Amino acid sequence: MAPTKTAAKPGERLIYLPLGGAGEIGMNAYVYGYGFPGKERLILVDLGVAFPDMDSSPGVDLIMADISWLTARLDRLEAIFITHGHEDHLGGLPHLWSQLKKPVYARAFTATLGRLKMEEAGLARDAIRTVKPRPEVITAGPFEVQFIPVSHSIPESAALVIDTPAGRIVHSGDFKVDRNPIVGEPWDDAVFEAIAAERPIKALMCDSTNVFSPLPGRSESTLGVPLAELIASCSGMVVATTFASNVARLKTLAEAGRAAGRTVCLLGRAMKRMILAGEESGVLQGFPRHVSPEDAVEVSRKNLMLIVTGSQGERRAASAQLARGKYLGLEMKEGDTFLFSSRTIPGNERDVLKVVNAFSEKGVNIVDEQGGKYHVSGHANRPDLEHIHRLLLPDMVVPMHGEHRHLREHVKVANEAGIAAIVATNGTMLNLTGEVPVVAERVETGRIYLDGTALVGALDGVIRDRIRLALNGHITVTLIVDEDGEALGEPWVDTMGLPPTGRGGRDLAETLEGDLGEFVAGAGRKVMADDDKLEEALKRVVRQVTMEEIGKKPEVIVVISRLSAE
Amino acid sequence: MAPTKTAAKPGERLIYLPLGGAGEIGMNAYVYGYGFPGKERLILVDLGVAFPDMDSSPGVDLIMADISWLTARLDRLEAIFITHGHEDHLGGLPHLWSQLKKPVYARAFTATLGRLKMEEAGLARDAIRTVKPRPEVITAGPFEVQFIPVSHSIPESAALVIDTPAGRIVHSGDFKVDRNPIVGEPWDDAVFEAIAAERPIKALMCDSTNVFSPLPGRSESTLGVPLAELIASCSGMVVATTFASNVARLKTLAEAGRAAGRTVCLLGRAMKRMILAGEESGVLQGFPRHVSPEDAVEVSRKNLMLIVTGSQGERRAASAQLARGKYLGLEMKEGDTFLFSSRTIPGNERDVLKVVNAFSEKGVNIVDEQGGKYHVSGHANRPDLEHIHRLLLPDMVVPMHGEHRHLREHVKVANEAGIAAIVATNGTMLNLTGEVPVVAERVETGRIYLDGTALVGALDGVIRDRIRLALNGHITVTLIVDEDGEALGEPWVDTMGLPPTGRGGRDLAETLEGDLGEFVAGAGRKVMADDDKLEEALKRVVRQVTMEEIGKKPEVIVVISRLSAE
Repeated sequence: MAPTKTAAKPGERLIYLPLGGAGEIGMNAYVYGYGFPGKERLILVDLGVAFPDMDSSPGVDLIMADISWLTARLDRLEAIFITHGHEDHLGGLPHLWSQLKKPVYARAFTATLGRLKMEEAGLARDAIRTVKPRPEVITAGPFEVQFIPVSHSIPESAALVIDTPAGRIVHSGDFKVDRNPIVGEPWDDAVFEAIAAERPIKALMCDSTNVFSPLPGRSESTLGVPLAELIASCSGMVVATTFASNVARLKTLAEAGRAAGRTVCLLGRAMKRMILAGEESGVLQGFPRHVSPEDAVEVSRKNLMLIVTGSQGERRAASAQLARGKYLGLEMKEGDTFLFSSRTIPGNERDVLKVVNAFSEKGVNIVDEQGGKYHVSGHANRPDLEHIHRLLLPDMVVPMHGEHRHLREHVKVANEAGIAAIVATNGTMLNLTGEVPVVAERVETGRIYLDGTALVGALDGVIRDRIRLALNGHITVTLIVDEDGEALGEPWVDTMGLPPTGRGGRDLAETLEGDLGEFVAGAGRKVMADDDKLEEALKRVVRQVTMEEIGKKPEVIVVISRLSAE
Repeated sequence: MAPTKTAAKPGERLIYLPLGGAGEIGMNAYVYGYGFPGKERLILVDLGVAFPDMDSSPGVDLIMADISWLTARLDRLEAIFITHGHEDHLGGLPHLWSQLKKPVYARAFTATLGRLKMEEAGLARDAIRTVKPRPEVITAGPFEVQFIPVSHSIPESAALVIDTPAGRIVHSGDFKVDRNPIVGEPWDDAVFEAIAAERPIKALMCDSTNVFSPLPGRSESTLGVPLAELIASCSGMVVATTFASNVARLKTLAEAGRAAGRTVCLLGRAMKRMILAGEESGVLQGFPRHVSPEDAVEVSRKNLMLIVTGSQGERRAASAQLARGKYLGLEMKEGDTFLFSSRTIPGNERDVLKVVNAFSEKGVNIVDEQGGKYHVSGHANRPDLEHIHRLLLPDMVVPMHGEHRHLREHVKVANEAGIAAIVATNGTMLNLTGEVPVVAERVETGRIYLDGTALVGALDGVIRDRIRLALNGHITVTLIVDEDGEALGEPWVDTMGLPPTGRGGRDLAETLEGDLGEFVAGAGRKVMADDDKLEEALKRVVRQVTMEEIGKKPEVIVVISRLSAE
């Protein structure tokens, strides 16, 4: 409980290095180090994922921070701390832990979720150790770490107090100032005042997500009455969606449904898993009684309420399934109500509107969050950020968990309160030892894609090739060259993802085969004998002909098979 | 000028058939017909495009309505009418007109833009005929059509009054109620009152875009003062973006820049083309003096204002170019201001935020529309829709220009005013002859993609294959079979867009070649002799091995070459 007594030795330094999460929202991974330059002992805070999209990462399953800086310094890494159970903080663990193999510390609910993930990946459950909140202290090399309960949109979120010989750091994690959060611990000013009174705060690493929201954030508890009124006013079936991990919201929704005399049913694996983890870890008590989909089918529509996954229009989630038709025997019909108790994350608008329009076709009434009436954010708004700055009075603020625009605005907020602050995006190593943050080094960082079961670098070219295939289509040319260096038969063309006919309705593949055949017939010995030259020449013919025929330049693979003179 | 005196003959009917634009925002194409069932004479109103996205139409250039219903009835088509010059109303003309070859009627500014497009496509300029607004009447078979000036976000937008023997129709086109639109004709209630007084309105086909906006729309003229104040308050260079076709906004922005003592420069081809068309058609008078980029480079930043294309984050537009670095010698720097005098169209958020964050990295101040302070929409809001319903008092309202949710809400608005209304999405043929709209037929409709220079159907499988390539990657297997039906050498594997190594760091292509070679060596004569069987078997091996190695099932092309016994 007592702060560390070790004083900083001359020449030692305290560093901070975001590998992910600073300059984007997602894949959080922050490194702290203390020691002589190049010999700092290290800890990692959070190891999250980001989600792919068709524009930049088609076919990819998950995106994670490139941790090669860390794996190259494994002997210096002491431990991993996970602030809370959201995917962008915890989700990288099952895919990257085996490269790190260090103890992972988390609070009970987060640890429960983490162990489920480790188990599914065939990894050791006991890599994750359950930690109690402050006053419990975890010592990891020169670091002494305490978990401080904060309110957020998932149970048992924590800020970290990280004591180092060079001073005390508060790493905010994701938080909001909610004094009545329905599930979990309320925000408590006194706790943070005590932390700052105990030892001055050197640096506050702080969530920046909602820095552009000018009004104070609203409590989860403000939603209960409006939701209950809405559901009571509905006549048909009511279906509500929200983030599966927002256990408080699930409870509020379920209670509103029960209060309106409805039988409640949860649809979607993620949702059931969260309730289970909540009950198992003791976080969630008294979740209203709910029935299985099989039983829900037997309930009359006007007495039924479903709570479902898929608030972002995800294709495989329950909401999209219901938008397409029957799902687990349940079907939405004219006069039913679908409620988005959620906000659309920028980039997901198209998918969400697809679901909305599909419901509209069925005659379903769609209710959105109505500007905050049926949804509140889990992140601190600008006045709340100003509030925590004032509570802690740190020497410096380092904004994290935000795109560049968020970090930059958050720096302005801190500066306006007279606090030193700096924009430090992924790969910017800061030296925090002095009175203001100083850039110590630029580290090469990046993104790793989980593609199927393989990990590939974002810049490896694999995904770039897939994007090219999507834009340009694909042509395979095969040619057999005989023992004498002459073409055996005609070149053969296979196309994929290309218009079948070109100008004047000519078959594209046939036109190509004709022109390639002509080229090969007239090609000199030298070209025919040189695989590289021949391949390049054939590609050139393909690109030129397809440009003339269909106005596109496809991706081309040329396979030349040479019969050897046996 | 006088309404048609022809009375409806018994058995004849008046029909309406949206081929595009009803059930989506984009690619407007509406057919009207009058006559005996199956023999109606037809007109087409608008022939627009929609824009592709990576999720559903990667690599596609433009999307248009499938007009095959119309091309199968060309002998019955009288004429084409274009309401205004936006791409979603005019853009299909250069790509589809040669399938229709009917006269096109439009007002001067729209006609100017249309002729530019026709010319670029190598088509006849004189296909487009310039029409004066009411009282001029164009007779097209049983239809008498007048163009009614309405306010919108592009000059010379028009509603159409379409007189038929069965009654008078008002086709709203895109419009807003703006009594002081800066450029072009103001909205005039009296005109619409006169139209309705002259002959009762049978049906109003009406823009639905902003039916969910609860407050009355604001005039373009409200932006002048705030924009002038904003620009006067900036110290560095000011760059503003808006839709190129919003000529009124370009003028307001340029005037605000000049008032602040700045030299104004327009960047982006689309913008210059619009100003040119505005001046050529006489619509735009007194556009402030502006300089070329070459001259702008010589002006000091604090005295310069750029007006640029790319309000939706389009990769090749001027705003994205400036976000990436120098463009035409001009560069944004710390302390400069970038203004979005525009709204982000749903689905473009990711691209717009990319531009915003890139500017943030440069230290540029970003100003968005600030909830309408620096941008107003060009479409009628809900109270404005109610207003035009009241002005015209039509027998029926048929909502168009909207997604399903918009059409459905618009029907509710009409019904609340006691007016019959119906949701009619693309392909829903309505019979308007009676007192209420009745569904006459469901016509098969769809989308046509312009892919390079080729037109392909959305359901032809071409684009579906490209999406698959993007998600799954591509493998080519080539195998040569000799005269005796035996493999000549090993199968050869080429991969594209796939992780190069699988489990345990094994090379994926080599692993595949090994396993395919083993399969071929053990394959019976029957399999080796049958191309289909052999291909299927090889594909199966590829899918199984890649699933084991990298957890993915790629797209596979197998090329079997058989040497004939010559």
